[in-house]
Amino acid sequence: MKQDQASPSADQTALAVICGAGSLPFALAEAAKARNRRVVLFALRGWADAKQVANYPHHWLWIGQFGRFMKLAAAEGCREVTFIGSVARPSLLSMRPDFLALRHLPQMIRMFRGGDDHLQGVVARAFEQRGMRLVGPKDIAPELLMPHGPLGSRTPNARDQVDIARGLALLRATSPFDIGQAVVVADNQVLAVEGPEGTDRMLARIAELRANGRIRSPSGSGVLVKAPKVGQDHRLDLPTIGPDTVANAASASLAGIAVVAGSSIVAEPGRVATAASQAGIFVIGVPEDGSER
Amino acid sequence: MKQDQASPSADQTALAVICGAGSLPFALAEAAKARNRRVVLFALRGWADAKQVANYPHHWLWIGQFGRFMKLAAAEGCREVTFIGSVARPSLLSMRPDFLALRHLPQMIRMFRGGDDHLQGVVARAFEQRGMRLVGPKDIAPELLMPHGPLGSRTPNARDQVDIARGLALLRATSPFDIGQAVVVADNQVLAVEGPEGTDRMLARIAELRANGRIRSPSGSGVLVKAPKVGQDHRLDLPTIGPDTVANAASASLAGIAVVAGSSIVAEPGRVATAASQAGIFVIGVPEDGSER
Repeated sequence: MKQDQASPSADQTALAVICGAGSLPFALAEAAKARNRRVVLFALRGWADAKQVANYPHHWLWIGQFGRFMKLAAAEGCREVTFIGSVARPSLLSMRPDFLALRHLPQMIRMFRGGDDHLQGVVARAFEQRGMRLVGPKDIAPELLMPHGPLGSRTPNARDQVDIARGLALLRATSPFDIGQAVVVADNQVLAVEGPEGTDRMLARIAELRANGRIRSPSGSGVLVKAPKVGQDHRLDLPTIGPDTVANAASASLAGIAVVAGSSIVAEPGRVATAASQAGIFVIGVPEDGSER
Repeated sequence: MKQDQASPSADQTALAVICGAGSLPFALAEAAKARNRRVVLFALRGWADAKQVANYPHHWLWIGQFGRFMKLAAAEGCREVTFIGSVARPSLLSMRPDFLALRHLPQMIRMFRGGDDHLQGVVARAFEQRGMRLVGPKDIAPELLMPHGPLGSRTPNARDQVDIARGLALLRATSPFDIGQAVVVADNQVLAVEGPEGTDRMLARIAELRANGRIRSPSGSGVLVKAPKVGQDHRLDLPTIGPDTVANAASASLAGIAVVAGSSIVAEPGRVATAASQAGIFVIGVPEDGSER
């Protein structure tokens, strides 16, 4: 493991990319290809973008087809697997578990009684018990991780720094409860804690609350803060931002976005920087403890 | 103070009731009148229900008219004041502060940079500095407080008890951050944390998430949990439920509602019990630590 962290492209076997929604799976696939890594996409039915999937060697799967995945991945010579792209928490029925998945059913039922953390542990163990190594963006394409410092031309002011620190502290406090990975804080007041609705809908809620006069801090104040959970497996489900996040934060009249550098993913950093500068909001990678560098 | 807690109706001077929205101010006024207490309503413009206000001796106020309130309350012979009914967090402009309120402006500006806790402390001190004693429902009409045990015919099962305990623990963890006083937990998964949108809109969000398949726990599971903040001044802004809360929890397909007994207010307990039984959901008063009695 340590060896691979030092040299992301050490394993030159094919990489299995299990693809959820959005553009990130393809950014990751391109980054792996740029390192001369062969990539096979395993596109999740209902989530992956079929048009873009068609540009790569690929297979389609239901989320529960663990046995089918293991068989196809072995035939493709994949020894490493990564999950990327968003997938809403599935219901047991919609997963269509196959025979091998059913063997993990007791674990899966336990996982459905917990939050995401449990799900992640079960998934990682299920793969590794069968000799398939689970890897994350850090191992494959560190350039997808949020860098330290600002993207775009704006930076947080002193008031924003207070909001960022409060947001990070709140996320640490809620982390054992396995909630979302995002909050909005404005003028030291917590405006929202993300639940299963996701970041974009949470930001839409802020915009609506502002329109209804339920938020006392002025337009142009407030920060969206995203951080991984304490002790989170960094190979799975890192907090993610992209150009849409910038657009939605601007619609919610926030001052900016702060995400933990090195353990959050930024989709299309160039477009994020341009969008942030144009919208007049900051996007910044911060240390996990909120301290200034 | 201790004397009054033992004997709620010890002070027989007139009671000033500062009225926000909803039916609670009138339930409190009736309870005080039933104890032969003279009641004068100070109805907040934009919030209090004008029709019901008209049934009592009353004056109308903007939220910021602190000086006007003190003058009128003195003329009415009021030595005790209570706040009741909902008021959204006001913006500084909408408060229309008068001269005396302006003298408290430095405190008020500080309070606007914090959350509700700060606001409560400032309000309580401002009254008490001028010889007006702030009292709460516990002092005036303890029958408005949520009792221990169920209202209506349903009770939580073992799964619901786990959700209640988790909700109370989460509210304790978020309490220092001065957020809302309500969360929804289903099958041990946190579905929502209340922000400035309030309980009813939070419940509407749950209903929407269920309709969109974003919640994996089945319909009929999940508990709305409400608790006062740790160390909260119990004279101000206690968590409140009423018949609407029951209707909204039922629309969100929850199993029930748990509120901390003795430090939450239940508006119209009879109607709440009937509504809960009819909707097939439980409403229960629980100890602050979530233990079974």
